[in-house]
This record gives sequence, structure tokens and C-alpha cells, in this order.
Amino acid sequence: MSDKSLSQPIRGARDFYPEDLAVRNWLFDKWRDVAKSFGYEEIDGPVLESFDLFAAKSGDELVNQQMYMLEDKDGRKLGVRPELTPTYSRMVAKRQNELIYPLRWTMFGNTWRYEKPQTGRSRDFWQWELNLVGGEESTADAEVLVIAAKAMEAIGLTPEDVVFRINDRRFMQESLTEIGISGLLYDQTTKLIDRREKISQDEFNSGLQNISLTNDQIGQLNSFLQASDLEKSPKLKELFLLLDRYGILPYCRFDPLIIRGITYYTGTVFECFDKNQGLRSVFGGGRFDDLVKTFGGGKIPAVGFAAGDVVIIELLRRLDKLPKLTPLPTRVLATVFSPDLFSDSLSLSLSLRSQGIPTELYPELSAKLDKQLKYASRKGIPYVAILGPEEVEKKLVTIKNMQTGEQKQTTMEGLKALIEN
Amino acid sequence: MSDKSLSQPIRGARDFYPEDLAVRNWLFDKWRDVAKSFGYEEIDGPVLESFDLFAAKSGDELVNQQMYMLEDKDGRKLGVRPELTPTYSRMVAKRQNELIYPLRWTMFGNTWRYEKPQTGRSRDFWQWELNLVGGEESTADAEVLVIAAKAMEAIGLTPEDVVFRINDRRFMQESLTEIGISGLLYDQTTKLIDRREKISQDEFNSGLQNISLTNDQIGQLNSFLQASDLEKSPKLKELFLLLDRYGILPYCRFDPLIIRGITYYTGTVFECFDKNQGLRSVFGGGRFDDLVKTFGGGKIPAVGFAAGDVVIIELLRRLDKLPKLTPLPTRVLATVFSPDLFSDSLSLSLSLRSQGIPTELYPELSAKLDKQLKYASRKGIPYVAILGPEEVEKKLVTIKNMQTGEQKQTTMEGLKALIEN
Repeated sequence: MSDKSLSQPIRGARDFYPEDLAVRNWLFDKWRDVAKSFGYEEIDGPVLESFDLFAAKSGDELVNQQMYMLEDKDGRKLGVRPELTPTYSRMVAKRQNELIYPLRWTMFGNTWRYEKPQTGRSRDFWQWELNLVGGEESTADAEVLVIAAKAMEAIGLTPEDVVFRINDRRFMQESLTEIGISGLLYDQTTKLIDRREKISQDEFNSGLQNISLTNDQIGQLNSFLQASDLEKSPKLKELFLLLDRYGILPYCRFDPLIIRGITYYTGTVFECFDKNQGLRSVFGGGRFDDLVKTFGGGKIPAVGFAAGDVVIIELLRRLDKLPKLTPLPTRVLATVFSPDLFSDSLSLSLSLRSQGIPTELYPELSAKLDKQLKYASRKGIPYVAILGPEEVEKKLVTIKNMQTGEQKQTTMEGLKALIEN
Repeated sequence: MSDKSLSQPIRGARDFYPEDLAVRNWLFDKWRDVAKSFGYEEIDGPVLESFDLFAAKSGDELVNQQMYMLEDKDGRKLGVRPELTPTYSRMVAKRQNELIYPLRWTMFGNTWRYEKPQTGRSRDFWQWELNLVGGEESTADAEVLVIAAKAMEAIGLTPEDVVFRINDRRFMQESLTEIGISGLLYDQTTKLIDRREKISQDEFNSGLQNISLTNDQIGQLNSFLQASDLEKSPKLKELFLLLDRYGILPYCRFDPLIIRGITYYTGTVFECFDKNQGLRSVFGGGRFDDLVKTFGGGKIPAVGFAAGDVVIIELLRRLDKLPKLTPLPTRVLATVFSPDLFSDSLSLSLSLRSQGIPTELYPELSAKLDKQLKYASRKGIPYVAILGPEEVEKKLVTIKNMQTGEQKQTTMEGLKALIEN
């Protein structure tokens, strides 16, 4: 049986070949270093969770439209996680009384969402999650935003490339209440605000009319969205002062259009977008003071963000800011001259590895030397070691630099220096 | 809404708190380094695959009893991968004609099996997969076994602790054919051999009688299993000669009881067990020359192994060979003396981080200093920096060594040296 269709991943899933994984590892290593520099410890949790964990707070779109659901053999409803925040919060809730606050954890994990695959949007993606748990002041909000800014800096994205658009749900609630929008009307209105940039002014207005806002309210709302001033929100004012002290104000902008679809946010919300490419949100986050409580136990304030790998890698590619990476670790190919000399090449490979030099041994007894050299050349292996009868007799080894073509004989002791130069 | 049961992961799933993840990362980093030293590149693939990918060859138990299955919204049958080899082989098949052979890839990934959770057996585990693709000689089999041995060495497991039990399915087929066991009878017999160690001699014999083996055949089979000599298999003889040259013979033993349940193995098979703890298999592998072909395209020989994280960590724990790890990266807590001095502590934290010193800033404006010191002490943060009005005026900082209790004032420039000593 041979079935060519079996060689493809499922729709929207991603195969990471060495050159692809090298990029993701580069990205996440950079971000991991930033998180560590702020004292964040790394955790991990299961890719499968109870359906109820997400149903509790993740919001209708994520749960009912985008989640991969399954039943285990005992009939329990499970979900493939569409985001990491519920798992993270559950792990806090589980050990709530033993943990030490303020708690700084970060997490890297695979998530799945059933979306239409297109550029910058696969169904299978990886997320970086970072939260500061147990801090309720603006200082905590500022810290996670600074980490996000340092994370952008670390991969070469400047305020020319990306903008952090920041808002506060508490401020929105107060401001909209002032123009008579509250309760169910508030929820309906913020849903429209969330879609504001995807629809025209007319569509927005008629949407507001449909939920029975008066023309006066619609006028006031539009003025608020166009000309609101963060000075009116003490929380936002304080936050922006801190962002200034941290030196990251150039990345940041107050924006009353940022609401975010996820249900569990309770205060500051933010989203990062690229400035010129029109891609989807690069990352998003906010304050979620009630989520840990939802999963059992007392209220613990928390603020943080999640950044996916897909959009940011697409952005870096378009801006030509992806580094040139060499996934191949091999420095030397130890060739096999003839079956009876295999042991000698084997010993050489062991010796090189024990000196910290990644070495491949050609795994055939009688392959032609030409074939082995061609393999090294195609693969991009920088050095080839040849051990023929002459070399073995003289206890030497011939080293060929595959870039220059230069060939030298050296002792075993001289080998390392030759390869490292 | 607050639901305590929501704080638990699903049955058999694993939460990796910082101290748990540190262990897994330590283990996989050690193994990754070994793989790299042999020139292996790292790949990754999706945790969800088409059901058919596993149905093709993974064997009845894995597919029909242990796999988590789901349907996507278009009604396609998917599976949460119970092992990594099918994904790995699929990725080879997909690019079969562009890839350069011999191909050396390794992979670390999450896998799920619906098993009864118990010690050393969770439903949610991580595997290290490593294969050499495109080499059909014993030299390739030897290479992956050497890598496995180096991987054991790297984490402190010696031939006193673990044994690699090695067999060859080709040799088994020949030997059993000699005593008239072939075709369906061969499959039935090897299934019993696979279970031999879990049942008594009587149960084994009556199992053989049930599949209609004669008493003479049963006698011959038992003699073969007890006293077979690898000298009778040229392949195994050659392999063990190579293992000797690699210096890893002390780890290795020929064992005709090793058959392995997975359908796709075609030659050498092996399994590693601990010697004294009676745990499950630590890792297993073998040659699978037909699997890539199953997923489309031509035949490409391959040999390799997969090692899970659960059993090996349990083994290391029992042998007291797990290292002491410190998941907390923080070196310094920058305390906040008073709201008006928050900016000074903020600047200090930025400066320390820019010098490569992981630093936490206490994220509250008015927390008592005592509370902050207590936090640092409970958390195990080695140094605390205090910036009061006096320090700020003199442009100094007070550093407290939390281990010794010693307190010193220093300039900003002198800080780094003080912390690193």
C-alpha cells in the first residue's frame, strides 16, 4: 500500500522542516531570554483539556466555532486548546494556596483553531504566553507591556514596524455609561466597536441603530471613539506615565477601538499590529482579574499577553528581518575509504565528537568516496575527513575544506584547530 | 461561577510546574546535544494527523484502543498522535525527492495514549524520536544504538542501570520457519513471544498449543528462545561487532524475546529496560524499511528509536540521579521603597537587565519593605536591592545577600561584580 495523499498534513497543520523549526526556535529563544531577564519561570500544560475549561470564559467564537473537540473513551468532552490562558490560570488555581505572589510564569505551547487557512493564519500555531499574577496595579500592566516591547526589540521590530494599541475596559464602561450605553446594550455596542475597523462608518452607524441607539447617542459615541483623551482615565494616565518611564512610549498608543473579543478581560486591554503590512494582530493581551477564580478558589488579579508565531514570522519575512540560520549542526563528515578502514573512520568520529565537534560518519561500508564528497557538498557540511591506507599508516588524517576546496594532512591532535579556524 | 474541579487537568494529563519543566528540559537538552553531536537536525510536526496515517501501520493496540480520535468540522477523522514515527516518515515522504540521503533528523514532541494512568504511565507524554533514513546497512543500526547509549551516558545511566535488548525480525522469521512456523502461525507465535515475560512458562506453552503448534515445535521454540546464539545471524553478528567497536557493548545484549508490537518494523528491533526497578520499557526502536513508502513514493530504508520522558524520569528519580535544578532565573529583586521612588527602582531594574542580570521589580507602589524581603526569601531570590532616599541621594544602592544576610552599599557600577561573586 502506498498512498501519496498520506504524505500531506491535515488542512491548516504545519510541518516544521529543519529550516522552519530553526526560525521558530530562534524566535522563541529570543522571547524566552526576555522573559527570563524579568524573572519569569517557564511552565507547560496539556494540549488537551476539559471542554468546560474553555466554555467557562474563552468566548463564543473560540469555543463554539473554532475549537477542535473530542470525546474520550469514557464520554468526557475534551477540547484541543485554542489558547493557553485557561490552562495557565487553571494551574494557578490548582496550587493557589501554595504559590508565592507576585507570580511570574511564562509558557510556550501549541494551540489549534479551526479557521480558514490563509497567509498568516493556519489552524495549527504556537503561542508564547506570559502573565504577571497577583499584581493589581498599573505597575503590573506596565511590566507586561515592557516585556512585550523588549520582545519586539529583541527580534528587530521597532516602533516604525509595530504599534501597541492600548485601552481599558473599565474606562470604556464608564465612558459609554455616561452616554446611556450599559448592560446588554454595552455588550452589543462593544461587539460593534470590536468590528469597527472591518466595516464602514455607515455600516457601523446602522449597526448601532439596529441595537436601538438614538442618533444622539451614536453621535456622542463616534466623537468619543475619534477624539477620546486618555487623560480622562486615571488608570490609563498612570499606565502611560509608567510606559514613558520604561522608555517604551514610542511603541504605545491609546486607542478606544481596542476591546478584544475574549470574555475574561476586566481592565487594561491591548493589541499589537504591524504598521505597514496590514497583517492580523501580532499579539494581544490584557488584565483578567477573575479567571483564576473561575477555576476554583479566591480572586487573584492577573495581567499578560499571548503572541502567536505565525503572524510575527510572516511580518519578519516581509520586512526581511529574519536571520540567516543554519539548522545543520554537522561540522565534519568522516568518510569511509573502504570496508576494512570503517573502524578507523568510526574512531575518528568518536574522537571528534568527544572534542565537541559535531561529526557525521558515512553509514555505508563501500560507498564511493566521490559519492560521499558529493553528499557533504550538497548538504553544506563544511569539512570532510578522509582516512585512506596512507593516512592510517602515518597516523594522519586528510581534511578537505568544502568551501575553499583546500586539502591538508594533519595529525589527530592538529585536527581541532584546523576545523575551528 | 467558581468550580474547583475545573482546576484539575483531565485524567492522565500532566501539568509541568517550573520544577517539573526544568527536569524535562534538562533531559531533552542533554539528548538534543547528543543528537547534534552526530549531526542530526531537528524537525517538528503537528500533534493532530489524519486517522489514516496511524491506521496504515501503527498496529491495532495503538490505533484502535489507545488513540484519541476526533472529527473536524468537515467530518474528517483525525487522531491525536500516539507516537512520532508516522509524522516523521510522512514528512520524509512529502519531500522524498528533494531530500539528501543519508538523512538525519530528530524530533521532540507531545504524544497521547489512552492508557490506565499509573506510575511511569500517563496518557500525556513527550517523546524523543531519532532516525537515520536512507541507510540500509548494519552501520546505520549501530549508529542509532550508539546515539541511544550516549544519551543514557549523558544523563548518568550506565550499563549497571539499563540494558539494550536487541533482536532482528529477519532472523526470527528464518529461525521460526526452520521449525515450521510461518505465515499466520508466525504472527500468532510472535504475539505470544512478545508477551512471554508477562506470562508463565505453562501459559506460554498452552498459548502455543492453542494456535496448534505441535509439542515438538513448542520444545524447539523454547530451546531457541532460551539458548539461541547471535552467531547464527550474520546481520546480528555484524551489528554486535560494530557495537563493540563503538565501545557500547556493555549496554547491549542479544535477546530473542524482543519482537515489539508495532507492525512497521522490518529488521533490527531493540528495547531498553532498567535492570533493577522493573519499570516499563525506557525506549524502543528498530528498522522500518517500508514505512516511508506506505505514505507515498519509493522505498527508503530507515532505522531509529523513540524514548518517552515518563519512565526515564521515574527511573532517574528512583536511582537518585536527577540533578538539582533551579528553575527561577531571578538574581535580584529590586524593591520599591515608596511610591515616589518607584521610578528609581524601575531604572535600576532596567540597568541590571541590560547587564544580563535577571531582575524582578516589585510590582506595587506601596508594599512594605518587609513584605518584599519576605517574598524574596520565600521565592529563593539570591539578592535584594534597596533604594531608599539616602541611597538615591548618594547615588548608591544597598544590596542584601539573602543567603548570608550580609548587606552592603555600592555604586551602580560596583553592583554587577557584587552580585556575581
